[in-house]
Amino acid sequence: MAQPIPQNYMAYDRTIVVFSPDGRLLQVEYARQMVKNGSTSIGIRLKDGVILGAMKGHMPLAVEDSHKKIWEIDDSVAAVSAGSLADARSLIDMARVKAQVNMITYGEPISISSITKYISDRKHLVTQYAGVRPYGVGLLIGGTDKTGPRLFETEPSGTMIEWKAQAIGRGADRAKKVLNTSHKDGMDLKAGVQLLVKAMKAGEKTVRLDNIDAVFVKKGLFEKVTLKATKK
Amino acid sequence: MAQPIPQNYMAYDRTIVVFSPDGRLLQVEYARQMVKNGSTSIGIRLKDGVILGAMKGHMPLAVEDSHKKIWEIDDSVAAVSAGSLADARSLIDMARVKAQVNMITYGEPISISSITKYISDRKHLVTQYAGVRPYGVGLLIGGTDKTGPRLFETEPSGTMIEWKAQAIGRGADRAKKVLNTSHKDGMDLKAGVQLLVKAMKAGEKTVRLDNIDAVFVKKGLFEKVTLKATKK
Amino acid sequence: MAQPIPQNYMAYDRTIVVFSPDGRLLQVEYARQMVKNGSTSIGIRLKDGVILGAMKGHMPLAVEDSHKKIWEIDDSVAAVSAGSLADARSLIDMARVKAQVNMITYGEPISISSITKYISDRKHLVTQYAGVRPYGVGLLIGGTDKTGPRLFETEPSGTMIEWKAQAIGRGADRAKKVLNTSHKDGMDLKAGVQLLVKAMKAGEKTVRLDNIDAVFVKKGLFEKVTLKATKK
Amino acid sequence: MAQPIPQNYMAYDRTIVVFSPDGRLLQVEYARQMVKNGSTSIGIRLKDGVILGAMKGHMPLAVEDSHKKIWEIDDSVAAVSAGSLADARSLIDMARVKAQVNMITYGEPISISSITKYISDRKHLVTQYAGVRPYGVGLLIGGTDKTGPRLFETEPSGTMIEWKAQAIGRGADRAKKVLNTSHKDGMDLKAGVQLLVKAMKAGEKTVRLDNIDAVFVKKGLFEKVTLKATKK
Amino acid sequence: MAQPIPQNYMAYDRTIVVFSPDGRLLQVEYARQMVKNGSTSIGIRLKDGVILGAMKGHMPLAVEDSHKKIWEIDDSVAAVSAGSLADARSLIDMARVKAQVNMITYGEPISISSITKYISDRKHLVTQYAGVRPYGVGLLIGGTDKTGPRLFETEPSGTMIEWKAQAIGRGADRAKKVLNTSHKDGMDLKAGVQLLVKAMKAGEKTVRLDNIDAVFVKKGLFEKVTLKATKK
Amino acid sequence: MAQPIPQNYMAYDRTIVVFSPDGRLLQVEYARQMVKNGSTSIGIRLKDGVILGAMKGHMPLAVEDSHKKIWEIDDSVAAVSAGSLADARSLIDMARVKAQVNMITYGEPISISSITKYISDRKHLVTQYAGVRPYGVGLLIGGTDKTGPRLFETEPSGTMIEWKAQAIGRGADRAKKVLNTSHKDGMDLKAGVQLLVKAMKAGEKTVRLDNIDAVFVKKGLFEKVTLKATKK
Amino acid sequence: MAQPIPQNYMAYDRTIVVFSPDGRLLQVEYARQMVKNGSTSIGIRLKDGVILGAMKGHMPLAVEDSHKKIWEIDDSVAAVSAGSLADARSLIDMARVKAQVNMITYGEPISISSITKYISDRKHLVTQYAGVRPYGVGLLIGGTDKTGPRLFETEPSGTMIEWKAQAIGRGADRAKKVLNTSHKDGMDLKAGVQLLVKAMKAGEKTVRLDNIDAVFVKKGLFEKVTLKATKK
Repeated sequence: MAQPIPQNYMAYDRTIVVFSPDGRLLQVEYARQMVKNGSTSIGIRLKDGVILGAMKGHMPLAVEDSHKKIWEIDDSVAAVSAGSLADARSLIDMARVKAQVNMITYGEPISISSITKYISDRKHLVTQYAGVRPYGVGLLIGGTDKTGPRLFETEPSGTMIEWKAQAIGRGADRAKKVLNTSHKDGMDLKAGVQLLVKAMKAGEKTVRLDNIDAVFVKKGLFEKVTLKATKK
Repeated sequence: MAQPIPQNYMAYDRTIVVFSPDGRLLQVEYARQMVKNGSTSIGIRLKDGVILGAMKGHMPLAVEDSHKKIWEIDDSVAAVSAGSLADARSLIDMARVKAQVNMITYGEPISISSITKYISDRKHLVTQYAGVRPYGVGLLIGGTDKTGPRLFETEPSGTMIEWKAQAIGRGADRAKKVLNTSHKDGMDLKAGVQLLVKAMKAGEKTVRLDNIDAVFVKKGLFEKVTLKATKK
Repeated sequence: MAQPIPQNYMAYDRTIVVFSPDGRLLQVEYARQMVKNGSTSIGIRLKDGVILGAMKGHMPLAVEDSHKKIWEIDDSVAAVSAGSLADARSLIDMARVKAQVNMITYGEPISISSITKYISDRKHLVTQYAGVRPYGVGLLIGGTDKTGPRLFETEPSGTMIEWKAQAIGRGADRAKKVLNTSHKDGMDLKAGVQLLVKAMKAGEKTVRLDNIDAVFVKKGLFEKVTLKATKK
Repeated sequence: MAQPIPQNYMAYDRTIVVFSPDGRLLQVEYARQMVKNGSTSIGIRLKDGVILGAMKGHMPLAVEDSHKKIWEIDDSVAAVSAGSLADARSLIDMARVKAQVNMITYGEPISISSITKYISDRKHLVTQYAGVRPYGVGLLIGGTDKTGPRLFETEPSGTMIEWKAQAIGRGADRAKKVLNTSHKDGMDLKAGVQLLVKAMKAGEKTVRLDNIDAVFVKKGLFEKVTLKATKK
Repeated sequence: MAQPIPQNYMAYDRTIVVFSPDGRLLQVEYARQMVKNGSTSIGIRLKDGVILGAMKGHMPLAVEDSHKKIWEIDDSVAAVSAGSLADARSLIDMARVKAQVNMITYGEPISISSITKYISDRKHLVTQYAGVRPYGVGLLIGGTDKTGPRLFETEPSGTMIEWKAQAIGRGADRAKKVLNTSHKDGMDLKAGVQLLVKAMKAGEKTVRLDNIDAVFVKKGLFEKVTLKATKK
Repeated sequence: MAQPIPQNYMAYDRTIVVFSPDGRLLQVEYARQMVKNGSTSIGIRLKDGVILGAMKGHMPLAVEDSHKKIWEIDDSVAAVSAGSLADARSLIDMARVKAQVNMITYGEPISISSITKYISDRKHLVTQYAGVRPYGVGLLIGGTDKTGPRLFETEPSGTMIEWKAQAIGRGADRAKKVLNTSHKDGMDLKAGVQLLVKAMKAGEKTVRLDNIDAVFVKKGLFEKVTLKATKK
Repeated sequence: MAQPIPQNYMAYDRTIVVFSPDGRLLQVEYARQMVKNGSTSIGIRLKDGVILGAMKGHMPLAVEDSHKKIWEIDDSVAAVSAGSLADARSLIDMARVKAQVNMITYGEPISISSITKYISDRKHLVTQYAGVRPYGVGLLIGGTDKTGPRLFETEPSGTMIEWKAQAIGRGADRAKKVLNTSHKDGMDLKAGVQLLVKAMKAGEKTVRLDNIDAVFVKKGLFEKVTLKATKK
């Protein structure tokens, strides 16, 4: 939490989402803090698609893929999460159904912005009504649709922003510095992978190549990216 | 918050919207504070239409337009917001549907005052019932209908007021001084742009021309305004 | 609030409307306080109709009529409010629909007492059930029906009283002294305007003629009153 | 409140109606206190009907009858209230509808005891369920039905008692002493009026004859009683 | 309340019925205390029926029978209450409807145990769900059915017990000592009346014969018992 | 309560069932304490059926059987309770209806495990949802079905366990020591009665034979057991 | 609870699931603590199926199998629980119905991952909505479907992870060390049993072979495993 909370503000964050005297919605800020507690996740828009990357947890006996933070939504859309895995799974499930219904109803894939708006609307709704809590998860949603490669972020308040490249989670600030400095429009996959690794290493100090999951999503393709040692 | 809140008033602002002993609805006042925390937004009624202006956030990798505070509602109506972007998006979505339903039902565009009243009714409703919080966003809604150019403000209590020119957000008080002094009825677009820039510079000390988004809305036209250096 | 509230009564006014040990409904009293915080509004029953008056706010760029406190309900009924503008607008909307439904159903205008009772019932309802707050607005409802000119007051508890002349808002006590002293049955419009101005000047120390809005409502007529300097 | 409430009992009277450790329903007792805060109202059963009396408020510009505490329910039944006027109006409205439905359904007037039971059931209901507060009003309901003249009292708990004569409100204790001493079975109207005035003067120290409203209700008759100076 | 409540237990009795750490339902215990605050009521099973007795309140102008604590349910079943008169009236009304429905549906009177179980189920229900409070009334339900004379007690928890003789209310402990000592199976009405008076005098120190209401209920008979001075 | 509750845990047990920081559901533990406050009840599985025993209360004028803690569910199933009699009665009523519905639907008696599961499901439900409290009663449910004699326990959390012999209530720990030591598989009724008495005497120090209720339940038989002095 | 909770955080864990300022859902963490309070349970994926193991409680008179922590879901799927037995039973019941519905609808067994997702969705739901508490139970769900042997874990947040081998409950950390060191892919049943015993002994210091319940689940087979002394 960037902004400190005065001692006697505790009353404003206990039940449903209400305003504090300085005009903040504290429950939403705390949910954002859960996102910041998660490991770093990164998305980069490339020439032909979007690359998404996340940290692998260190769980030797876990079956790989069963706990990763990268989620396929449709064959041209994926998401990477930071924060609550259970909240992510729940939102992704809704998004998958939405995408399939769109395909069946209109005979074409849903646009990346529509699927993001759908998730953001859900996130916003639970910040306004009593009896339900905000989602404690941030998502970078990337893919390719008729308009080309697109990358969006949704955060717990329900705000959605489109990015050329973005990082979320505990190392986001450090990783974004790398992205700001090194991102170029129209990068190819190789350059994108190098940037992803560089940004991830900035965000997560001790990360090694084999601790990074990465996927490349373009029109009709959701493909795991093999990370090989790159010379810096 | 202009009026200070005595120490022992904390009990009156915690749950649903209730009155404090001096007859104030504190949750509504706090939601207004969220509006005041937002960056400055300005609307000016001109001879042929309305000009709306807002600050651009400084996010180099963000795709422009994806996070701006100016929203198209219909081809003759737009809004500029201060405060919660997510609350703004939710209200604008409702307004867009309302405008389209009106067009389909009556074969003509909805009036600016009707669309403003629709949003204000929604804002008022959530200040009266438990289980939902007030909207933390102010909107300046401008456009042109059969009655000519119109500019309205809605704020968190659900009050709506029509203005010749108005500013909301953190620099509103300073910007309104400029508007009060320099606004003239029947200004043309060029004069309106100059006034907008002058008022925005009063409200936001360090603003530069390329940090200001502006649109001009007239009958059937929603058009981005290019701001060029103007000699003062 | 005339009656002081002991320190340890705070517990009785926090959630839904409940009784305090001395038999008061504090939330209703606080809503009344919001009425008393508003600027002074006055209604006077005359020979042929009712005159209603209110203060104009000082907002140079606001479009006049967009924020006034006098509301037309039907062509023979109007109201002047003190307190929350948003609550007033919501109640007046309900009253307008009620009046139109009456006209369509019975082919004649609704009586002033019926429309007042309709608003008062709504005000009372929200003082008795949880999940909704009292209305923070007082209304003087005046007009002419088959029984002649009538003037009613509704306040936040849902009580309704008929008056020959009445003032509400922050200057009500001082204005009522003038009304008590100078009101006569069967005054004509000119005498009514003079009394209105005199009472308003008692209630609002610094008021000038051009800060007063006034309307005259009689059978089928809702007409703005132009106030000119009158010799006292 | 006859019984004092220990300091640490405050917790038992805040939300819905719950029991205190000594077996009292404090919210109901506080509602009774609102009845005791009201001005004195009196009912007396006479040979041919029932006389009901109440204080007039001192409001010179109020239209008489618009704020009185005596309510006609049906042409043979009326009520006088002490406590919340708004709560009284709401209950009387329910009773009027009930009486009319009875007349339409069975072709005969509802009995005084049935209409009282109907109001008492409603009063009891709101002392048992959450989400609604008790009624802060006492009613003396009098009239004449097939069984002769009847006079009932309902109070906030929902208890109903039939009386030969009874007083409620702030002067009830003093007025009841007069009633106990001077009431005789089978009094005629003249004697009833004298007793009413005597009891009212005991209850309200400074009352004058022209501050007392009184009605006489008998079979098919609801008639205002003119009070003239009587020699004591 | 026999068992004292530790100072810091207050938290367990405030809202809905919840358990205290020592396994008690305090709201139910407080409702029982309301029963104990009521005047003494007594029931005795005799050879041919059941006798029920209660104190008359001292209200000279009240119409007798309108506030008594003995209630006829059906022509062979009655009840005597201690505690809240309004709660008693509400439960008795339910029981009367239940009894009539049974008569119409099966062509025979409902059994005393069934009508008691019906009331007890209702009492239990409100101790388990939120949003409603326990009933603050105890009932002794007596009458004669196909199985002979029966006498039951229901108390606020919803427990029902059948008795040969039982007392409830503020003098219950003292009255029960008399009943335990002097009750015999198969007493006739005369002996029953004597025992009732003796037990009532033990429970209520200053009672006189004309302050006691008593009824005798047997098959098809609900009859007021005239108490005459009996030689002890 | 075996485990002590730290002073500052009080917050975790007040409203609906929530977890305390050490992973306990305190409202469920307090409901268990109500079971432990009840008198001792015992069940023993024998060769041909199940014997259930409980303490009789000392209430000389109570009609025997009207307040006992042993409940017949169906002609081959019974239960003995410890804790709230009213909660027991409510659960047993549900079980009786369930058993009858099973008989009518399938033409055969419900199994002991099914009826126990039905009660346990109900008990669990009220520990998970707001607006209702846990049941403060433990039940030993015994009988004989197609699988032979069975004895189950349900406690307030909704856990169900099958036993050869079990004791619940205030003397449960002492009684279980006797059961653990002396129970043998395949005991006949005589041996079972002896064990029941021995265990009950261990649990309830001052018990006499005539204070113990006992029933023997086997296929189609629910029979009261007469306890005679047995030589130890 | 690994992470300590600051003194003044108590406010964040009392009612529905809300966020604490550092972005944690405390009620979910406390439910996890209930899992950690349970005895150790272990699951291991083998070549042909999955072995699940749990501690037996020490209850000499309890009927074995009636309180064990291993649950059959379908003939090819089982689960072992740690934490609340009642919560486990409730979730397993839902899973059984789900499995049967799948079989009837599609004519083939439900996959292990689908049944796990179904339980996890339910677990997640109750962490997001008010009026219901999280489940205080962890489950290891194992079995064999068309994809071969699978082993999943669900925990109170609704997160699901697939494992080769996993331990939950109070000894989980110690047992997982053994599993991490000694687990090999493609173990046969004999090796699996040896690993299970070794890990269980690490988790539960004083465990003996006859205190361990174990089952082996493969395609169409749910079979109890007899543990014999194995030489280490």
